Amino acid sequence: MKVTVLVGGVGGARFLQGVLAALGEQGDVSAVVNVGDDLWLHGLRVCPDLDTCMYTLGGGIDTGKGWGRADETWSVKAELEAYGADPTWFGLGDRDVATHLVRTRMLRAGYPLSQVTEALCNRWRPGVALIPASDDRIETHVVIDDPDSGERKAVHFQEWWVRHRAVPPAHGFASVGRDQATACPAALTAIAEADLVLLAPSNPVVSVGTIVDVPGLRAALAAAPAPVVGISPIIDGRAVRGMAEACLDAVGVEVSAEGVGRHYGARSTGGLLDGWLVHETDSAEIPGVAVRSVPLLMTDPEATAAMVRAAIDLAGVGGAGAATGGADV
Amino acid sequence: MKVTVLVGGVGGARFLQGVLAALGEQGDVSAVVNVGDDLWLHGLRVCPDLDTCMYTLGGGIDTGKGWGRADETWSVKAELEAYGADPTWFGLGDRDVATHLVRTRMLRAGYPLSQVTEALCNRWRPGVALIPASDDRIETHVVIDDPDSGERKAVHFQEWWVRHRAVPPAHGFASVGRDQATACPAALTAIAEADLVLLAPSNPVVSVGTIVDVPGLRAALAAAPAPVVGISPIIDGRAVRGMAEACLDAVGVEVSAEGVGRHYGARSTGGLLDGWLVHETDSAEIPGVAVRSVPLLMTDPEATAAMVRAAIDLAGVGGAGAATGGADV
Repeated sequence: MKVTVLVGGVGGARFLQGVLAALGEQGDVSAVVNVGDDLWLHGLRVCPDLDTCMYTLGGGIDTGKGWGRADETWSVKAELEAYGADPTWFGLGDRDVATHLVRTRMLRAGYPLSQVTEALCNRWRPGVALIPASDDRIETHVVIDDPDSGERKAVHFQEWWVRHRAVPPAHGFASVGRDQATACPAALTAIAEADLVLLAPSNPVVSVGTIVDVPGLRAALAAAPAPVVGISPIIDGRAVRGMAEACLDAVGVEVSAEGVGRHYGARSTGGLLDGWLVHETDSAEIPGVAVRSVPLLMTDPEATAAMVRAAIDLAGVGGAGAATGGADV
Repeated sequence: MKVTVLVGGVGGARFLQGVLAALGEQGDVSAVVNVGDDLWLHGLRVCPDLDTCMYTLGGGIDTGKGWGRADETWSVKAELEAYGADPTWFGLGDRDVATHLVRTRMLRAGYPLSQVTEALCNRWRPGVALIPASDDRIETHVVIDDPDSGERKAVHFQEWWVRHRAVPPAHGFASVGRDQATACPAALTAIAEADLVLLAPSNPVVSVGTIVDVPGLRAALAAAPAPVVGISPIIDGRAVRGMAEACLDAVGVEVSAEGVGRHYGARSTGGLLDGWLVHETDSAEIPGVAVRSVPLLMTDPEATAAMVRAAIDLAGVGGAGAATGGADV
């Protein structure tokens, strides 16, 4: 079964582990990954969501933190600080730097990000085709009141998220470069050829929202022959991880499984969803969308695989035992 | 006393320590540093000689190896190898990478190498103005027979020196980019305003030779009001460090203190030297050049300082006790 998943970083990577566990050997999984968090840092192109997916699925992730490399060292970061080189608030580990060096060198040589990612994945073998939502530079910026000066300004998403821990309220988001960008052709193909499209329980605004707002992607989802099922990142009125509440507040979406589901909306009425999974303790009514309540805590790949099987079942695309077993089927 | 020294890497850095020890507080030392060894590595601009001088004089050098950073870690290098990213033969330490990141970012922003070096030295405070011989890209390439294929080809100096340990005989050297390059203005000023110019006991071909061949530099030395004194890197027919023999062989210069002195030649006849220091066990006759035999082993900064005082004395520019004391004068 061909499954295409729209994902962000930490939560998206864990969800992909569940997709792989649910589909086993018969799965053919593509992930369309958010690039809005990407940034230039000390002359290096850093792609946090792509790398989190790659390291997680390739066995290189720091499982404690959920991002960055296991057994990481921090000499480069300490030295950059000793030089007074800004910014100092980003966790740029030494092993991680090597990834960015390879990526930056290839980008400067003219390779598109999708090919660069493929090259990096030759090492990591994530078991999933990791496809950037766009080969173009699209960067999410956040309008905040500067915590020091009080002045209203736009900062890179990472500065708000990592440096300021999303504490200063976001007045809005801007996708810098989006109007000039196009969707990665491989992402459009993966959506068009899928038997099932899943929206991972990633941040609905700055992960999934940023992906579907890439020119061409929303139209591809609308035209997809496959059903589209989303998994709520909100359980019992709270984001399971990350700080999605701050993002939802900023765009005026109620922080609830129903609120996010309605924000995505039904495909039949110009939205994204055919189906919507909410947590077993939640309920939601979304016109035109089939909703089901199932356990949504990604405590381990098997629990996540059960979520994926529920999504397959809700979409009605199971059959022939395609997703009834585990990774060993 | 204003002293300007032409230097390469490890030997040049140690020589500069002696210059500082000899001149003490009254010294005003500029170093015109070879850039022919510089290279692009994994998208980073690496300047081995500038960095060796900077780290040595700034207290950051690995004193055992003579190059690279003390307490270095090697995560980046190991990861680049895991990606199969060539080249793998260069010792790119993590702390060192931070220097190259700061440098590369500034170069890409349009700052000339001399200003970048100044910025890096704001941290290291080497006590010497480190001036690249040129702000332009000049790279020494070496013509060799490939050890694997036997094919004649030109490789970057570092590939010959570091990867092949200078084992394949050099058929010749080429300074790529030299014809389009100009000398760094600060280097020309440092030579024009010096009370004494010294040629460090660095490699006569690929360090000092590459520096003086930068367009404008030889003319600046010829026109310098100050005397020029060189220190032989050859003692008893052998290079004190490095593999200078292989370079001298390639350009047909006898590996002896006299051979190198004659290769440099007298300023009065279009060469470089007014004076030439050779080791106490050596002698040399060079028409038009005052030669003196003194101990030339740079066993510690004080021994090196004695060499510098001998050079000052030979040049006849001492006086007023300018260089008769040590660092504590």
